[in-house]
Amino acid sequence: MLKVGLIGAGRIGNVHAKAISLHPGSELASVSDVFGEAAEKLAAQYGAKVLGIDAVMADRSIDAVLIATSTDTHSALIEAAVAAGKAVLCEKPVDLSLERAQACLKKVAGSGLPVMIGFNRRFDPNFGALKGALDGGEIGKSELLSITSFDPAPPPVSYIKVSGGLFRDMMIHDFDMANFIMGDAPLSVLAVGSSLVDPEIGAAGDVDTAVVTLAYADGRIAVIKNSRRAAYGYDQRIELLGSKGLLQAHNMLENTVVKSTVDGVTAAKPTYFFLERYMPAYAAEWDAFVKAVVNGTPVPVSLEDGVKALAMAEAATRSARSGLPVRLDAI
Amino acid sequence: MLKVGLIGAGRIGNVHAKAISLHPGSELASVSDVFGEAAEKLAAQYGAKVLGIDAVMADRSIDAVLIATSTDTHSALIEAAVAAGKAVLCEKPVDLSLERAQACLKKVAGSGLPVMIGFNRRFDPNFGALKGALDGGEIGKSELLSITSFDPAPPPVSYIKVSGGLFRDMMIHDFDMANFIMGDAPLSVLAVGSSLVDPEIGAAGDVDTAVVTLAYADGRIAVIKNSRRAAYGYDQRIELLGSKGLLQAHNMLENTVVKSTVDGVTAAKPTYFFLERYMPAYAAEWDAFVKAVVNGTPVPVSLEDGVKALAMAEAATRSARSGLPVRLDAI
Amino acid sequence: MLKVGLIGAGRIGNVHAKAISLHPGSELASVSDVFGEAAEKLAAQYGAKVLGIDAVMADRSIDAVLIATSTDTHSALIEAAVAAGKAVLCEKPVDLSLERAQACLKKVAGSGLPVMIGFNRRFDPNFGALKGALDGGEIGKSELLSITSFDPAPPPVSYIKVSGGLFRDMMIHDFDMANFIMGDAPLSVLAVGSSLVDPEIGAAGDVDTAVVTLAYADGRIAVIKNSRRAAYGYDQRIELLGSKGLLQAHNMLENTVVKSTVDGVTAAKPTYFFLERYMPAYAAEWDAFVKAVVNGTPVPVSLEDGVKALAMAEAATRSARSGLPVRLDAI
Amino acid sequence: MLKVGLIGAGRIGNVHAKAISLHPGSELASVSDVFGEAAEKLAAQYGAKVLGIDAVMADRSIDAVLIATSTDTHSALIEAAVAAGKAVLCEKPVDLSLERAQACLKKVAGSGLPVMIGFNRRFDPNFGALKGALDGGEIGKSELLSITSFDPAPPPVSYIKVSGGLFRDMMIHDFDMANFIMGDAPLSVLAVGSSLVDPEIGAAGDVDTAVVTLAYADGRIAVIKNSRRAAYGYDQRIELLGSKGLLQAHNMLENTVVKSTVDGVTAAKPTYFFLERYMPAYAAEWDAFVKAVVNGTPVPVSLEDGVKALAMAEAATRSARSGLPVRLDAI
Repeated sequence: MLKVGLIGAGRIGNVHAKAISLHPGSELASVSDVFGEAAEKLAAQYGAKVLGIDAVMADRSIDAVLIATSTDTHSALIEAAVAAGKAVLCEKPVDLSLERAQACLKKVAGSGLPVMIGFNRRFDPNFGALKGALDGGEIGKSELLSITSFDPAPPPVSYIKVSGGLFRDMMIHDFDMANFIMGDAPLSVLAVGSSLVDPEIGAAGDVDTAVVTLAYADGRIAVIKNSRRAAYGYDQRIELLGSKGLLQAHNMLENTVVKSTVDGVTAAKPTYFFLERYMPAYAAEWDAFVKAVVNGTPVPVSLEDGVKALAMAEAATRSARSGLPVRLDAI
Repeated sequence: MLKVGLIGAGRIGNVHAKAISLHPGSELASVSDVFGEAAEKLAAQYGAKVLGIDAVMADRSIDAVLIATSTDTHSALIEAAVAAGKAVLCEKPVDLSLERAQACLKKVAGSGLPVMIGFNRRFDPNFGALKGALDGGEIGKSELLSITSFDPAPPPVSYIKVSGGLFRDMMIHDFDMANFIMGDAPLSVLAVGSSLVDPEIGAAGDVDTAVVTLAYADGRIAVIKNSRRAAYGYDQRIELLGSKGLLQAHNMLENTVVKSTVDGVTAAKPTYFFLERYMPAYAAEWDAFVKAVVNGTPVPVSLEDGVKALAMAEAATRSARSGLPVRLDAI
Repeated sequence: MLKVGLIGAGRIGNVHAKAISLHPGSELASVSDVFGEAAEKLAAQYGAKVLGIDAVMADRSIDAVLIATSTDTHSALIEAAVAAGKAVLCEKPVDLSLERAQACLKKVAGSGLPVMIGFNRRFDPNFGALKGALDGGEIGKSELLSITSFDPAPPPVSYIKVSGGLFRDMMIHDFDMANFIMGDAPLSVLAVGSSLVDPEIGAAGDVDTAVVTLAYADGRIAVIKNSRRAAYGYDQRIELLGSKGLLQAHNMLENTVVKSTVDGVTAAKPTYFFLERYMPAYAAEWDAFVKAVVNGTPVPVSLEDGVKALAMAEAATRSARSGLPVRLDAI
Repeated sequence: MLKVGLIGAGRIGNVHAKAISLHPGSELASVSDVFGEAAEKLAAQYGAKVLGIDAVMADRSIDAVLIATSTDTHSALIEAAVAAGKAVLCEKPVDLSLERAQACLKKVAGSGLPVMIGFNRRFDPNFGALKGALDGGEIGKSELLSITSFDPAPPPVSYIKVSGGLFRDMMIHDFDMANFIMGDAPLSVLAVGSSLVDPEIGAAGDVDTAVVTLAYADGRIAVIKNSRRAAYGYDQRIELLGSKGLLQAHNMLENTVVKSTVDGVTAAKPTYFFLERYMPAYAAEWDAFVKAVVNGTPVPVSLEDGVKALAMAEAATRSARSGLPVRLDAI
């Protein structure tokens, strides 16, 4: 039974607490949060202790930590946990600063401890089925990848200001997905972005609508589309053209009911947001982490994967500003 | 070049005139109608003559007649045309009276002349593809057939009164479709019908909503659903369960556009009614007739097929009244 | 916290144990089974006691029993539990004998204790959304209901022999669904059935393919199609024509991936069987039971509902044998 | 009755001959082609004359010419036809050379004669319905456009060598579609292309797989994906995110049949290529041209539209080579 210290008791921390608790191979040992009340409440719900971060690290009975705090604390917490001999699952992104993330990667390299980054979408059953079909040769060789990823509504501008911006906070999922599907990092990144959804976002120096093209060394191409607003809900689709066919992972819908009236033929909307769409993915992600830790096998999404995706976000940010392509090896 | 005399210049006569005229192997030679004006107008449109029915039969240059008059005249016109040595394509149903239709069948039997009944739906590309997949063994042996056939809106009660009722006028298409798909006529017919759409239809002694179950000698089953009203348009679907799978022929939609908004995910409605849905089927039907006549091969839908479907309509009418199953061999 | 005694530790008992255990308002107190080993194993998994049935009934700390034993024991267990003052959730069908079920209903009437029958499909989110749309007036008044319910593969003939046959064991779900959607029981039942899937089933006196038509007092019609075999998986669909439109609840698919190749455009199959398709429904069913018990409100599926569905199964069994319609009030 | 001289009797010339001939307001007066035999054959089919180009221009009875010759002759033929006082419908692209096309535009400007460019896809009923829904305000303001346009198989390299390459020959349709949907030309063009389908295409200096991003002055973005090969057929889709929703125009399928077996749920493939998919669009295009000529209203796709799309193709060609964005006003 893997004993887990959860650091961060916000919305995503709650999601992880549930996954940890429902998993037959793990239990929630402790909860930490700068807001004591949030930690108390969550700990009580699952019969866990409330601990300060130093106490978590010092507690020899805690095998693993799940880091779900604000992004600027991730690198330091990863380093502290590894120093304390604990396995780590850390939420994305690794850091807002690519340099800091690279330093963290360097510091924990060679520890032999599992450090996994929480790119939950790799564990979505639909995207997993798409990847499985590709790997099974069902559409030949991959050629042209297209990722559509729209949020239902923009976050408050206050969040935008600390999030690192659309490329680091939102599209970073899609960068990792591209790496996962294509099995390689791109050579160069070409970003076009604008603020169409909320002028406040533009005023804060960020974009809310963006298209990024990734060019690979072998000529393959990927394109990622992001918007902070889709009136119909969370739009999460992948489409991959291969030499022998096309794979598409469509949205999951709220239900399967279709209504035909004089106004048309109407189906349900996509599941509303990431909590609805990706709940099974969070559980599968946690299961994969537990299995890797218990079996001593490599984690399926490494810290290096997290740093790669962050480098792509950095490149996209620069490209969107300059209007020029940015080579990843120049980052 | 097959020279064709069209008898009947109403709505469906106009459909056939176009098909005859567009076909490279046929031309519209004459048009006949009890309403002289209708005949004049249609004839002028295609450069054809206006002829009385006797003149059509007497005209040695006319190779074939297409009968699109009111149902009570079909049998006599078929007999006259065959007596005059002409090939015949006659609209469904053969007659309102099963006895009269059987007499007609007996009379023209052995003439060696092609007499085809206009069950246009056999030529619909979707239903044709379903039948082709069945015949190609793609779902094993057929077991359970389901036909959904709803009109967008009921006809005027005045029409109902002369149409022979829902089973003879509307479901007769579905009876023929069942015979076409199942490759056999059923042993017995079980009908349940009511008047839910328009009380006037019930007052006129007819039903507007009906479910008919067909039981076959070898245990297979078919079920046909009819309604005179589908608010969303013409609903024409077939579904066939076989020992190795299911085939479904879905509706054709007005276009392929899908709109996603806060209200749901909305596609276009089905093509509105039979003129929209079955126009390609009418053209294919005519082509099949021309080919059979020219090549001396059997017509794909025989007069006997027409009489069979009419017998099923008769059985359904009786079953709906008595509440009891009616054996086809007792009709 | 509702303390629950589970009677029956078979496949469906396991499903319920999980639902009871995951629900925040209930806990699994005891497990009973004629096979001691099965009871031991399941009890151990959830930290429950193993109790004999008499002990369960005698245990004042147990608030409710969930009956998941073989059908022939249901009535007696319901009666015993009610006599012991416990709330009851009993699996469908109430009994194989309609008389026995009616006697049970009479016996427990007036006890004031909640007795619910486990028609889990009422709690499927898709069927629930369809019912909600109907009740919300979205398609006007209901007119013609069609239920498709195919199992992926037939059970062993040994099971058929004790199950009461297709109408009592399998289609009983659809009878209840018709009652749920139409809000009324039908006037008469017309069944056509045959054995097409497995000749052994026919030899055992049962059918494996059937179509049942239900006629309602107000003229509405419902048709239910059952087959014991659908090569592509569990096919569970409902379609309802109303005066202003059509509602369809389609199958849930294993995933949303679509593959387009030279062979066509291929989507995933339906979720394989009832455990995959209806797991959320079992949880929602349990939640509804707990709420009714705790709040003292009527259970959403009453023992009377269970007896009604059984009467329809009885009528269908007779109709399939005689070939004649059977009135429900004559049962 | 508009009398039309068709110049070019190749594959696309045949398509136009049929559309001209079927239209009630036009007739095919003459056919011209450098291959006399092709002209003879096509002319005979529709009862038209064979004429040399000078004779066509000199024939006062010919009201309009349809130019369907090789691209390098388009500009000269447009100029000659306008000089001869004829209305013109010319196939896309206007020219391979942007300079030559601009010169042509300048030369015919002010003639007052209708000159329309054959961007047939604007007349596809699906894309038309999408545009209509946008203009009707159904998704608010347009923000992010995505066009997918894959051919089923690459043309012979000999064709590639004279076609002007993927951007001028194939994606030019999509550039015009972007202009049509967005109602504006972009500020800059960013192209990434490679040769993944056929190395011979790469050796000939062209790409067969490309992604082009268009950035608009008001911040809107469009992305176009092209591939010369889709194993499943002709893939022609448009997707537009607006402030209040999403519009998608999906592919048309060969038929509506869906087969469910142990291998999955399989629908028909998209209609194979442009002849199958766009035949109704060619007829609607011709109808729009005839109406504009007869009514003296502006043609729906002007020569200027053709030159704009060609400028975008030129920009994309340069961008794909340099790896840098190219501003349209710098072309």
